[in-house]
Amino acid sequence: MNGAELLVRAAAASGIEYCFANPGTTEIPLVAAMAAEPALKPVLSLFEGVCTGAADGYGRIAGKPAMTLTHLGPGFANGIANLHNARRANTPIVNVIGDHASWHVNYDPPLASDIEALARTVSGWVRTSRRAASIGEDFLCAVQAAWQPRGQVASLVLPMDLQARDIVFDDAFPKPTPPVRRFASDKVEAVARQVRAGKRLVFIVGDEGLSVAGLQAAGRLAGLPGVRLFAETFPRLSYRGGGLPDLDRLPYFPEVAIEILNQYDVVVCAGIPEPISYFGYEGIPSRLAERDRLLCLAEVGDDVSSALAALAGMLDAPAFVPAPVGVELPAAQERLTPQSVGRVLAAALPEDCIVSVEGGTCGYPFFTASANAARHRVLTNTGGAIGQGIPVGFGAALAERGNRVFCLQSDGSAQYTIQTLWSIAREQLPVVILIAANHRYAILQNELRRFGLSELGPQALALTELDRPRVDWKALAKGYGVPASSVRSNAELQRALAEAAASAGPCLIEMEL
Amino acid sequence: MNGAELLVRAAAASGIEYCFANPGTTEIPLVAAMAAEPALKPVLSLFEGVCTGAADGYGRIAGKPAMTLTHLGPGFANGIANLHNARRANTPIVNVIGDHASWHVNYDPPLASDIEALARTVSGWVRTSRRAASIGEDFLCAVQAAWQPRGQVASLVLPMDLQARDIVFDDAFPKPTPPVRRFASDKVEAVARQVRAGKRLVFIVGDEGLSVAGLQAAGRLAGLPGVRLFAETFPRLSYRGGGLPDLDRLPYFPEVAIEILNQYDVVVCAGIPEPISYFGYEGIPSRLAERDRLLCLAEVGDDVSSALAALAGMLDAPAFVPAPVGVELPAAQERLTPQSVGRVLAAALPEDCIVSVEGGTCGYPFFTASANAARHRVLTNTGGAIGQGIPVGFGAALAERGNRVFCLQSDGSAQYTIQTLWSIAREQLPVVILIAANHRYAILQNELRRFGLSELGPQALALTELDRPRVDWKALAKGYGVPASSVRSNAELQRALAEAAASAGPCLIEMEL
Repeated sequence: MNGAELLVRAAAASGIEYCFANPGTTEIPLVAAMAAEPALKPVLSLFEGVCTGAADGYGRIAGKPAMTLTHLGPGFANGIANLHNARRANTPIVNVIGDHASWHVNYDPPLASDIEALARTVSGWVRTSRRAASIGEDFLCAVQAAWQPRGQVASLVLPMDLQARDIVFDDAFPKPTPPVRRFASDKVEAVARQVRAGKRLVFIVGDEGLSVAGLQAAGRLAGLPGVRLFAETFPRLSYRGGGLPDLDRLPYFPEVAIEILNQYDVVVCAGIPEPISYFGYEGIPSRLAERDRLLCLAEVGDDVSSALAALAGMLDAPAFVPAPVGVELPAAQERLTPQSVGRVLAAALPEDCIVSVEGGTCGYPFFTASANAARHRVLTNTGGAIGQGIPVGFGAALAERGNRVFCLQSDGSAQYTIQTLWSIAREQLPVVILIAANHRYAILQNELRRFGLSELGPQALALTELDRPRVDWKALAKGYGVPASSVRSNAELQRALAEAAASAGPCLIEMEL
Repeated sequence: MNGAELLVRAAAASGIEYCFANPGTTEIPLVAAMAAEPALKPVLSLFEGVCTGAADGYGRIAGKPAMTLTHLGPGFANGIANLHNARRANTPIVNVIGDHASWHVNYDPPLASDIEALARTVSGWVRTSRRAASIGEDFLCAVQAAWQPRGQVASLVLPMDLQARDIVFDDAFPKPTPPVRRFASDKVEAVARQVRAGKRLVFIVGDEGLSVAGLQAAGRLAGLPGVRLFAETFPRLSYRGGGLPDLDRLPYFPEVAIEILNQYDVVVCAGIPEPISYFGYEGIPSRLAERDRLLCLAEVGDDVSSALAALAGMLDAPAFVPAPVGVELPAAQERLTPQSVGRVLAAALPEDCIVSVEGGTCGYPFFTASANAARHRVLTNTGGAIGQGIPVGFGAALAERGNRVFCLQSDGSAQYTIQTLWSIAREQLPVVILIAANHRYAILQNELRRFGLSELGPQALALTELDRPRVDWKALAKGYGVPASSVRSNAELQRALAEAAASAGPCLIEMEL
């Protein structure tokens, strides 16, 4: 056995199912070793950002880490943007990064760079293996570091010579310990006291609080006088629909969020860090609420839903009454708008499907519309590094093979990891990619106006318009082997979604807005 | 005036022509400022790797830095792979990276990460601006740090609040000092002594030694008994053809290179660092020649061509006799092979064109064939981070607007920055993209065989074959607005190149191998 085979065996023993890989010469022993271990399935992608985004989507849905395999510093660097999102989503991921042979790297060959420095920017745990015989243990440490109640990105750098070195190993691997979430009842008490004192409370619920149990408890709490609940603005995984209470996302722009939170005496954090403005704007505070108004019901990584349920019980909150299910469709013949896209898609969602949302234009209206859809899960872009939605949808589709996944995606952000279309076609997954094609970076045009540009001149347009040339989405999808259509009206979108539902494979729908 | 306007004015005063940009919210004041400065042309790309690769290609051809503009840590991270190549090419580049407002970043908002740590992995110079009034000076320091005889990547992090802050500035900017290359005559003397002592010498020529003057001097030296010359394996910029002597590239695999170098008493480094194996292989030394056989004629960043010319003069080397020009075409009706692609392309090169080469399959045979082509320049992948060839060709085409650029590209590596097709179509540049479509990572299959796998099983193939689905290159090009064709025979490739020559815009030619 060599070091690479030891790693692959450790991965299989840890229950790692998928290795999202884009290997190179320094990972050759690992590629060879994977050939002998059917329990670990290698999934090739054309670009590393696909691998890391897929591992994020897989981890959020499966609740356990996938592995990525990338090539030295530059290969890993291509995966950093989506690892940044995974870090903000607290998704457990184990990255394995091949390095030059340890006796070679100090000669500074062309591909050498500071891999650990790159890895540290997105990882909670970083290690470089130093002995072939310890590779299995190193890998298990990485799995354990990643697979915490508050998940982490763990990165293991693996010199090529250690991968290839022969070792003797006949032990069994210990199984990693699954994470256990807990909550602190004194924190629940403290919040209950505020309610009993007649204070007005606004909750911001995140993390595991947006599970079915969490939302049901939230629904009970919403029945108490003076209590309102929001979901965090960018949930890692939020259950929606199927009668669950409609927790709106806290608005994105800080002045709007602050105005809402200011209506309450106490801002309760339930599975979120301190609420902070996404960006800093002159004259608007970074903190969305002053610190002395904040109260923490549960930390990120806690058993947020049980904390919410305990609070509801403690306060004798009314029983939860499921909301009605049923989405009102917009007028069939009218042109698509972000609002009508939200409603048509919400109405088409099959039970238990998954929706990966990236992009503001259609993302917010969909979330609003989907409150009364069938039960589904929404994944959002937690870290703001764009090019996340389609890879996350791809990974989610592998975590629940056969289940329907929708990627509701802006055209600008889809481009950063467009190579995911090939991976989805390769694996023939039932993923429906909806491209909201407005041919511009709409968020930047908004921000330019916020900054004071009343009119966008040719230079400002040159940096924010994507219309010269317009991307031909049908051709692009065809290039990667994904069937595609283009729709303009609500009826056309409905029809395209019905056709997608009848197919077991992927499709892309360009929505001309 | 605000800080962003100060930076843009400093850029224009420094002679920076292009800003390769993919901005976000934290760069909005810079986007607004560029609208008022026509001397600095913003060029939008769909992905940051396009921006940084373009800046590399521009810098190699123009001999001066371009600017890139990227969004926070994750946006910059997407540009790291091609900055890694630029670092190895010693290309001058000035990166400007927007950051959160300095009063906001410590709240750890979603998009915060350690930007300086990322930048340091690829930059020789990193600074974060701390005062709005100093932004101009900071930028000029970055330009000066980048624009050295041995060029560097310089990265300036610019907090959003400083960009937006009003300042008073009425000075003129000092012009940056262009780099001056020099050489050390004592090093030339030392090499001359070895020749006079009757030693057998092999030269490895890189950097500016592969200019016209450098190659002409190399041609003279090649006429001396016991002297042989090679080009470095991956030149940043090599002149070829038009009668210049044919300096073959030193072979890639170390055992072959070592065998060649072992035939000589002295290995002379002329504009290269110590020759090192690209990767480390068990049982093969990292150093391609022992240190006591090495002699340095000129360092990277030196005036290598003058050092070569001085040596040729000192040794009374014979006059340089231009090689004949004329490429023999392969049989028209035969199927394309890597060798025939090299010859057909070499025969089609117009005078003074530029060829960006990425990928082993066709890259080496082309270099061999192009020795007798019309005068042209070849750019290669210096750092091994793939996805470099098309962006570098794009940047080169902007550095010499109107001049013909060819990208000779493997299909696997083209995918990493495929979004460049859109940029090339947007700017309507005369770039011909030749895709060598063998639908596999051939280099990895070679390396697996070198590693001992005599037969590639289904798992090994799953990680190295790109044939399920095959990328439809014509559709992909259409998606991004680039006309495309597909060719199988030498005659078809000749015809496609003739059609390309008749057009002022871009085209893509898929070569089925």
